[in-house]
Amino acid sequence: MGARVSVSIGDVERAAGRIAGHVRRTPVIEVSPGLFMKLEALQHSGSFKARGGFNRALSAGRLPEAGLIAASGGNHGLAVAYVARSLGVRAEIFVPTVSSPVKVAGLRALGAEVTQVGAVYAEAYEASVKRAAETGALDVHAYDQPEVIAGQGTVGLELLEQTGGVDTVLVAVGGGGLVAGITVVLAGRARVVAVEPELIPTLHRALEAGGPVPVGVSGVGSDALGASRTGALTYEITAAAGVESLLVGDEAIVEARREMWRDHRLAVEHAGATAYAALLSGAYRPAPGERVAVVVCGANTDPATLV
Amino acid sequence: MGARVSVSIGDVERAAGRIAGHVRRTPVIEVSPGLFMKLEALQHSGSFKARGGFNRALSAGRLPEAGLIAASGGNHGLAVAYVARSLGVRAEIFVPTVSSPVKVAGLRALGAEVTQVGAVYAEAYEASVKRAAETGALDVHAYDQPEVIAGQGTVGLELLEQTGGVDTVLVAVGGGGLVAGITVVLAGRARVVAVEPELIPTLHRALEAGGPVPVGVSGVGSDALGASRTGALTYEITAAAGVESLLVGDEAIVEARREMWRDHRLAVEHAGATAYAALLSGAYRPAPGERVAVVVCGANTDPATLV
Ligand SMILES: Cc1ncc(COP(=O)(O)O)c(C=O)c1O
Ligand SMILES: Cc1ncc(COP(=O)(O)O)c(C=O)c1O
Repeated sequence: MGARVSVSIGDVERAAGRIAGHVRRTPVIEVSPGLFMKLEALQHSGSFKARGGFNRALSAGRLPEAGLIAASGGNHGLAVAYVARSLGVRAEIFVPTVSSPVKVAGLRALGAEVTQVGAVYAEAYEASVKRAAETGALDVHAYDQPEVIAGQGTVGLELLEQTGGVDTVLVAVGGGGLVAGITVVLAGRARVVAVEPELIPTLHRALEAGGPVPVGVSGVGSDALGASRTGALTYEITAAAGVESLLVGDEAIVEARREMWRDHRLAVEHAGATAYAALLSGAYRPAPGERVAVVVCGANTDPATLV
Repeated sequence: MGARVSVSIGDVERAAGRIAGHVRRTPVIEVSPGLFMKLEALQHSGSFKARGGFNRALSAGRLPEAGLIAASGGNHGLAVAYVARSLGVRAEIFVPTVSSPVKVAGLRALGAEVTQVGAVYAEAYEASVKRAAETGALDVHAYDQPEVIAGQGTVGLELLEQTGGVDTVLVAVGGGGLVAGITVVLAGRARVVAVEPELIPTLHRALEAGGPVPVGVSGVGSDALGASRTGALTYEITAAAGVESLLVGDEAIVEARREMWRDHRLAVEHAGATAYAALLSGAYRPAPGERVAVVVCGANTDPATLV
């Protein structure tokens, strides 16, 4: 990439225009006075990832014969498969062998070719890069591409419009594309707080180290938040804006997910409950009167595990 | 009741003012151009029933020592228990013995006293009326009370505001309180279409017969839509407005419920998918450009049965 790449609010606004009509404007609910949830779990393909996928594909002009290619532990792959089907092109998705059978079946149901390779995301990713070089397919990165970050940032734009502004936004982090996109929009207008499982502290360790470093990946968030390091571009954006990262334990995530079903009838995956877990567990304590938004980011889960 | 009782749009507007702050303003999503879903499954206690319950209780002035009493196959009971807990009074709920264990456990978890009596709703209802006369508790009818109908009608008011108006609203029917309340608001502004399971055609048979008649109750909708006849007041309101009733088969309901989870990540109970089943099955076919709203009315279900 040679020259310095970044993402501006203008990029996010243009992304919003490009993907309108392809993605859902997901609802925001005020679950108690001043506490908002952005229900991105109701997005096409079950997570916010369709936003970045559409923006990357629609920014490319004419799509190649070979279509789209991606590597993903699950939701990003589902989103790219959905985007390809919507736009009438092929999708080839590389997933690590640990991916849940539900997610692999979901990919195939969307018409994607699926290759299961590698024990971790990084290996599936390497294989997809090699394959893209052979076929000429357009690679859609799970988080570390400007178009992907700008697409995810449209969650932040909608949040602003739908709430009229908040003081704080809590966002779950895997590779960091969602939090980076939201940071582009909200930096200076709200405090952006990254929330990560203790067992996958990608951004947390990066902020301590002053740059992306590899971390272990385990626990209930693995299949969606299981990047083994934060992205270079996502790191640059979030670190420059002073985003802080809070860690939450797996029990807090499990409990938050149960509570969301029990008290709100929201069926979400563990990643989709991670940001809310910061509130429920007290890892984040809003001041009196503080307006807080939680991004509810995904619902690709076996609903039998909700109770 | 002696004098003729009815429900006006003013009653619904006053109900909206009374229950604001107690109920959630549930979101409306536009799932495809011109097709709206009102997500009343995200209401407190998991169905729209909390609206009627709050309006009945808050219309009463000072609540009696004995609190609230209700008979219900499930969701109405959950709502009344929720309302009582919110207002700090007792709730006594009579349910037929067929009620699902999940719903009975939910009632107890909300602090209600539960009495299981009678094979069908009507018997549980008789027992509750007798008990109310003894204790002086405020009876909250599941559908056939003006305050309850006015409370349910607030769904229609919000729908108008949130969509800017639609041509048609599809609404599931049990005893008819929800459809009657919505009819009070929308008659003359939109076509209100009642949707009922073939196996529980309360309003359908009543419209044929020119008045409420008993019907059989069976099939997947029984635990929420299983009234054995439509209400007198609900009938009067819906029939006078020319509401039509469409019937849908249980397979169509089951398929609609699956589709709502698969394609929209909405976890709902069978009653909550009944109105949508009319669209998916072709029982209702909108004209080109017609703006249609579906009321997604309940989510008190075992999520393990969604897939
Ligand atoms: C449901 C869900 N939430 C959050 C994330 C994290 O997103 P990001 O990798 O952009 O940080 C993912 C990533 O796949 C996800 O699927
Ligand atoms: C989820 C759900 N939908 C619809 C209905 C039908 O409502 P009504 O009895 O007002 O017709 C009920 C009644 O309990 C319900 O619980």
